[in-house]
Amino acid sequence: MPLDTPFAPLVARILAEATVIDDRIVKIDHFLNHRIDPHLMGAMGAELARRIAPFQPDLLLTAEASGIAPALAVALQSGLPLVYAKKYAPNVEPPEFSRLVPSPTKGGTTRLVIAQRYLPAGARVAMIDDFLANGRTALALAEIVAEAQADLVVAGFLVEKCFQGGRHSLSERNIPVTTLAQIERLEAGRVVMREAE
Amino acid sequence: MPLDTPFAPLVARILAEATVIDDRIVKIDHFLNHRIDPHLMGAMGAELARRIAPFQPDLLLTAEASGIAPALAVALQSGLPLVYAKKYAPNVEPPEFSRLVPSPTKGGTTRLVIAQRYLPAGARVAMIDDFLANGRTALALAEIVAEAQADLVVAGFLVEKCFQGGRHSLSERNIPVTTLAQIERLEAGRVVMREAE
Repeated sequence: MPLDTPFAPLVARILAEATVIDDRIVKIDHFLNHRIDPHLMGAMGAELARRIAPFQPDLLLTAEASGIAPALAVALQSGLPLVYAKKYAPNVEPPEFSRLVPSPTKGGTTRLVIAQRYLPAGARVAMIDDFLANGRTALALAEIVAEAQADLVVAGFLVEKCFQGGRHSLSERNIPVTTLAQIERLEAGRVVMREAE
Repeated sequence: MPLDTPFAPLVARILAEATVIDDRIVKIDHFLNHRIDPHLMGAMGAELARRIAPFQPDLLLTAEASGIAPALAVALQSGLPLVYAKKYAPNVEPPEFSRLVPSPTKGGTTRLVIAQRYLPAGARVAMIDDFLANGRTALALAEIVAEAQADLVVAGFLVEKCFQGGRHSLSERNIPVTTLAQIERLEAGRVVMREAE
């Protein structure tokens, strides 16, 4: 099965319930990342766990805060340990890896920090996050994994906003990407999904 | 079973693996909230789900970021929807509830924000978090629940640091508290657990 096969339960919820704010912003936070529907999140975790398994990861990696729920759902299904990058974290034990990520919605930058001992050299890492949008968080995590001399073997996302181009930062590094739903574009107040090929 | 019966798998990990930094700070972030052990987190979620069930909650509530993993573990076990308060969240849809929480480790204050529509009046809310320490986050969430005219029927925590007194802010509101491990005190570089009564 192709890595971007639409996951029907998620696509149906997006089409039925998303609020399109403008041509870049779509709100689905009532089931994805402010209020979470446990049945859908559990099903998505199981599906992502199934899709990343062939890449034989031994560690999951995400970033605070909205990545934690989908990544934990994958962790509980796969039995893989989960490391999440912290934001604003003076109490992360040094030495640490860190990257500054521009934060368009919040203004300024956010610092992502991971204690080095939790990202061992040689680890086979699967990145998990809720959205792949402009790809800046994904790029920061990919750079950290490279600095740790670990291998980023696959990246899995619930929703890709294709029109923001974030996939490029992963595909140019030859990192396989799997997504459960791809939003082709937002137009005239509605969501246009990318169909299965 | 009393609500504070020690959960043996967690107590054992704390005693075997915690790093005591000083008489207030204990590090167990390698399995709890930076790197997560999925087997232990799943087991703790199941245990908390079992303990809160008699209070018949219909909604789980926690706060970014370290509350998300334990709360989702409970949500996946119980099938209850989960709402988490966001920090620094200009994109939460108004009207919203919010409280400022002092942040001792980070300095300054953190603003917790919840969209009002995700916390309906009359909801039976179970609060879940990783730590009950000074109780400031718990108090902020309790105040928000009261403002929403919802009912906080129980609060569940993985670890209570008894010497920081946070339970007081819940017990004075007659909110039942359940904990999986209680740290009585930190002394001479070691953790002293509260025993079962």
